[in-house]
Amino acid sequence: MLDTLFKPKSISLIGASHSEEKLAGVILKNLLKFRGRVYPVNPKYKELMGLNAYPSVQYIPESVDLAIIMRPAAEVPEILQEIAGRAKNVIISSSGFAEIGQNELQDKVAGLGKEIGIRILGPNCMGLYNPYHNLDTFFLPHSRLKRPQKGNTAVVSQSGAILSCILGALRLSNIGVSIAVGYGNAVDIDEADIFEYLADDRNTDVVIAYIESLGNGRKFIEKAKSLSEKKSFILIKSGKGESGQAAAFSHTGRLAGRYEVFHFILKQFNIKEASDFDEIIDAAKAMSYQRSSKGNRICIITNGGGSGVLAADECMRQGLDVAALPEGKKDKLKKIFPYFYGINNPLDLTAQVKNEDYVAAIKELKDDYDGFVVIALPNVLGITEDLSEMVSEIKRDFSKPLVFHIAHSSITKKLTSVLENNKIPVYSSPERAVRGLKALLS
Amino acid sequence: MLDTLFKPKSISLIGASHSEEKLAGVILKNLLKFRGRVYPVNPKYKELMGLNAYPSVQYIPESVDLAIIMRPAAEVPEILQEIAGRAKNVIISSSGFAEIGQNELQDKVAGLGKEIGIRILGPNCMGLYNPYHNLDTFFLPHSRLKRPQKGNTAVVSQSGAILSCILGALRLSNIGVSIAVGYGNAVDIDEADIFEYLADDRNTDVVIAYIESLGNGRKFIEKAKSLSEKKSFILIKSGKGESGQAAAFSHTGRLAGRYEVFHFILKQFNIKEASDFDEIIDAAKAMSYQRSSKGNRICIITNGGGSGVLAADECMRQGLDVAALPEGKKDKLKKIFPYFYGINNPLDLTAQVKNEDYVAAIKELKDDYDGFVVIALPNVLGITEDLSEMVSEIKRDFSKPLVFHIAHSSITKKLTSVLENNKIPVYSSPERAVRGLKALLS
Repeated sequence: MLDTLFKPKSISLIGASHSEEKLAGVILKNLLKFRGRVYPVNPKYKELMGLNAYPSVQYIPESVDLAIIMRPAAEVPEILQEIAGRAKNVIISSSGFAEIGQNELQDKVAGLGKEIGIRILGPNCMGLYNPYHNLDTFFLPHSRLKRPQKGNTAVVSQSGAILSCILGALRLSNIGVSIAVGYGNAVDIDEADIFEYLADDRNTDVVIAYIESLGNGRKFIEKAKSLSEKKSFILIKSGKGESGQAAAFSHTGRLAGRYEVFHFILKQFNIKEASDFDEIIDAAKAMSYQRSSKGNRICIITNGGGSGVLAADECMRQGLDVAALPEGKKDKLKKIFPYFYGINNPLDLTAQVKNEDYVAAIKELKDDYDGFVVIALPNVLGITEDLSEMVSEIKRDFSKPLVFHIAHSSITKKLTSVLENNKIPVYSSPERAVRGLKALLS
Repeated sequence: MLDTLFKPKSISLIGASHSEEKLAGVILKNLLKFRGRVYPVNPKYKELMGLNAYPSVQYIPESVDLAIIMRPAAEVPEILQEIAGRAKNVIISSSGFAEIGQNELQDKVAGLGKEIGIRILGPNCMGLYNPYHNLDTFFLPHSRLKRPQKGNTAVVSQSGAILSCILGALRLSNIGVSIAVGYGNAVDIDEADIFEYLADDRNTDVVIAYIESLGNGRKFIEKAKSLSEKKSFILIKSGKGESGQAAAFSHTGRLAGRYEVFHFILKQFNIKEASDFDEIIDAAKAMSYQRSSKGNRICIITNGGGSGVLAADECMRQGLDVAALPEGKKDKLKKIFPYFYGINNPLDLTAQVKNEDYVAAIKELKDDYDGFVVIALPNVLGITEDLSEMVSEIKRDFSKPLVFHIAHSSITKKLTSVLENNKIPVYSSPERAVRGLKALLS
């Protein structure tokens, strides 16, 4: 069990610094909010950022749950030997291992970890952010990267850079995080171990993962499959082409493997895969807001014909069926709406739309489809800020996935904020809305 | 020549209203900024928004360059007969034609146009926005859709909805517009006529187009090809699948045609095609900021390994070559940079990056590649707001395409605004940056 890693009670930081100009100083600053015990280690100081500093780990009055090492790579083996028996887990934040060709050094570290009986996250990794536990081991200052709030979405990333980008994007998209892990070169704890942990984590409903390379393919598939059976799960695999694979190799020192094989296996095991950065963020928003559901019959309700067509095109690419309106409903809608509305799927409420039309359309069609893409171009005065509350209210009556695309306008921010407070995700393009919806359907 | 349509000196508005609650009232309001003569026509009023109103077109003291009709579809033929000889061009903004099955009515309108000798834009269309001419015939209020500034990018869209979405997105992306045309059901003036006009328009360097269906395929190809030889040009074709085609048909009453054929022909004639809404906006930004260029050898410079890998993956998808560093340069860079930097392509400056490293890398590599993707994750303190000015300065020394991806952070807005003022486009994801760059290369 990795509980002592993800929810430690005590932490030592080897290489702690007083200066926020240094990465280790940023880590220490971030650890000040931690409610457990923190032991900075640096022989040059008696005190660091108001905490007692220790000349070496031997002076720390207890065996800690988690040690963090931020010292040059070459010193890491020696430090590991020092913390033997004095820490259950270690995050090796330092870089300078296989990612720059120092494979021997990395192997040594891996071997030492096993010998000593300590679990290793990293090296060359960002570490952990667990807002439920006030834990933040990142070397990124809050002044630059505001962290997302508490939420239900876990983020797993081999790359610390991508982890930080995902967290920034999640915060922008108003998505809360249960836990975030940057696991780097993965000499010990790898993506599969983390998936296993998250499958049983109470705070986590959704898991998104960025993966460059796999240590053990069989273990990965087993854990990813069982995770995706318990939680909403989507991953992005990078290092797809030759140049990407070379880049991934030089980045973490692990081979990316043939992407086509990976892709095929994911499909076979029904594990969701995003194709680019925006897509995984868009999927995360949908999955963190709404429950997944079965079916692929989609209804598109729009006040802009062209936007409806783009959404229909994307449905086709995503294997979703923009099925024709049931005949009876068609007649009924023709009675409700003006003659010049386009009574089809997409349902085109035209530039003459009023808020009530959306509500009427959803009410009429909610039992006929598996998911809904609602498109509002609020450039016309018939759409007002009330639309969000009106749709949110009717959405409370049914549990099928419903997502919005709202085009840019002077009232888009307000419309979005009310909808998203009501757990209806809003996207900036028709295609992104469809891709968000797709993440909710299987 | 369509000069009298795109740059009229006098305009009549048939169906003008005093109320901005009505679409025709919005149009009138938008025409108040026009510097030429405006004649609102409505028998119920003597004056509308401070202008003399006319009971019918017969009372207007001159033959106008442009008449705009915003009256119910059924009245349009009669109105056309009234304006015969009293207008050179007409924009039929009204909907209610082939897009809702009123083909006969539409054919009648088309026939009348020819008979009378008047050029028709529409019906079922948004009309024109020409900031260089203070012309705005849209029925969208400025309070909802702020228009982009004057610029070098023309927008051509069959769908008024998409036109408005594109304009909103262009404004958000800080891209100026030379002219915007929503041409709707295209009974007379179609995309090809507009392309022909824009090919010679002095204010236009870039053309982006949204197309659902083609009237005359041969004419389209001819004009699109010659446009793309004179200007930067990219289009998006919607109505790709069966459902999208059905939607496109019900939207403008023209058949979308088989997409595969269209796609193949575009490729043959080297006409650029965007695959979704974001992509056409991203391309527009790159093309409006920088000159197109030859070649496909790309250099990626990053401080986040994972972001570099995602960019490399997208390069592969886009047929761009992330070619290895020249051996001599590799050695030189190894001397310049710390040992733990990843001296490859992507060039990984790591979390320890400083602003100067970007400048040094670009200086060293600018002659070795055809285009550059620079990635900055400003979550680390080594990147400061000065980066933008420093890179902009070195960019002045060479004309090859260079685009940025900057991840979300507290200084991203400032970094972006300085770069974009210096005509270096900034994107929110690695993949979008690569797609922007791709639009500049051939």
